[in-house]
Amino acid sequence: MKLIRFGMPGAEKPGIRTEAGILLDCSTFGEDWNESFFGTNGLDRLRQWLTVNQSKCPTVKSETRLGPPIGRPSKIICVGLNYSLHARESGMEVPPQPVIFMKATSSLVGPNDHIVIPRNSIKTDWEVELAVVIGKRALYVDENHAMEYVAGYVLHNDVSERDFQLNHGGQWVKGKSCDTFAPLGPWLATTDEIPDPHQLRLWLSVNGEKMQDSNTSDLVHGIPKLVSYISQYMSLLPGDVISTGTPAGVGMGLKPPHYLKPGDVVELGIDGLGTSRQEVRAYA
Amino acid sequence: MKLIRFGMPGAEKPGIRTEAGILLDCSTFGEDWNESFFGTNGLDRLRQWLTVNQSKCPTVKSETRLGPPIGRPSKIICVGLNYSLHARESGMEVPPQPVIFMKATSSLVGPNDHIVIPRNSIKTDWEVELAVVIGKRALYVDENHAMEYVAGYVLHNDVSERDFQLNHGGQWVKGKSCDTFAPLGPWLATTDEIPDPHQLRLWLSVNGEKMQDSNTSDLVHGIPKLVSYISQYMSLLPGDVISTGTPAGVGMGLKPPHYLKPGDVVELGIDGLGTSRQEVRAYA
Repeated sequence: MKLIRFGMPGAEKPGIRTEAGILLDCSTFGEDWNESFFGTNGLDRLRQWLTVNQSKCPTVKSETRLGPPIGRPSKIICVGLNYSLHARESGMEVPPQPVIFMKATSSLVGPNDHIVIPRNSIKTDWEVELAVVIGKRALYVDENHAMEYVAGYVLHNDVSERDFQLNHGGQWVKGKSCDTFAPLGPWLATTDEIPDPHQLRLWLSVNGEKMQDSNTSDLVHGIPKLVSYISQYMSLLPGDVISTGTPAGVGMGLKPPHYLKPGDVVELGIDGLGTSRQEVRAYA
Repeated sequence: MKLIRFGMPGAEKPGIRTEAGILLDCSTFGEDWNESFFGTNGLDRLRQWLTVNQSKCPTVKSETRLGPPIGRPSKIICVGLNYSLHARESGMEVPPQPVIFMKATSSLVGPNDHIVIPRNSIKTDWEVELAVVIGKRALYVDENHAMEYVAGYVLHNDVSERDFQLNHGGQWVKGKSCDTFAPLGPWLATTDEIPDPHQLRLWLSVNGEKMQDSNTSDLVHGIPKLVSYISQYMSLLPGDVISTGTPAGVGMGLKPPHYLKPGDVVELGIDGLGTSRQEVRAYA
């Protein structure tokens, strides 16, 4: 299945995208695609429900705004420096253990919403990433069983302010958590839709120019390792997001560096997870 | 007002603590003390409601478990190295700008719940902290108006695994987010109860021995500065928690260092915010 959420920010309704690419309103299922849904076998229940009810679901107009395809999770865990060429362009070594950091969930927006450059920003940058959505509570999970805890996958732009991240003292969170810095979607694809999440092309362009173009086969730490590893440090809850890191080609790595400015258009995509498009705006 | 939540983990009910120290069940108010409550003038509405209904609220038995006094927030932002003596004992400089990091909200527990030492932990440490609860959405707030965005204050033990935090690669989040690492409460005191949050004694003892004993007058960056500063980087949402940092006397700073072990008892308190008590357990 492909899960979507649509409607005005903060008032999104749940839906699905059919194999034929039609968007259907699943409001009558009565639940949002959130922690409670994933944590109570929601995907199985929804699949069953659709066998009876799909034909009665209203179509969503194609011009309707999409929100993030999941309700606000308890946390977004991001993985840093998880493609070797990106570590090199960042002037850092590939770390022996995954580097993890958190991104405030208040940064979440829909896949085609604007990216708003925060006040005092001089280095707003892009990062196409494969994000994993957790399906059930995971603590001390071993790698062999880790994939059982994954509900699905989603396209994520881990927008980052490099000056805030690296030059404002301390930890990376300052450069990762600004409002609009987490465009997520267009859809969550359940695991059955993505036979091998480690063989997916992912790419990002700015104003039509391809900046990132790689494959998840180049991930340093794959998904089973990440789920298992993070679950040694904390409980991952249903609906939680792990963003697996970005490949080479971010603005910080260019010579000279190149950052987003108002009016720019960012487009990104991952095989099987669709594409998203964000226009860049100044903070008004 | 002093807000409490009581009952089984995950099924807490809202209540208050009266001036006389009686705990009252406010379930019939019909809301949890969470983002939606704070974000819709809940404190004012509750105050009004109590003028009519307080006498009808059932008493909560004193042996009832307390939960965190607020429903799970969108985020917990912690401030590092915000007391100068603690920075020194940590072998670090007082940073010119506040150092901030996030703690997973899945680490929240009640004030008197157990602290569970995670697997593979060798350095589980304590940190008494004054935590601030945000009352309304704050973005680009200036210091002069910052206190208008504060709903109240709460006692927090920012439990920390120093080996995970400092020696496992990358960012601090690994050592801050383990389950049970955020005992919060016993109550949230609204701002009117705490005339000067920068004149509060705070202390922590382990097995009856006083380890931390300081005053919030020693905060490097005070509350208006922290609220204003963090709001330059992200939206603070109603119910969000800012934990303002710990004074000197953590286990890492002792010579030799001293960490928690199963069977230890941690007690802590802040003027006007009550006390909490956690027994330390091994992960079973």
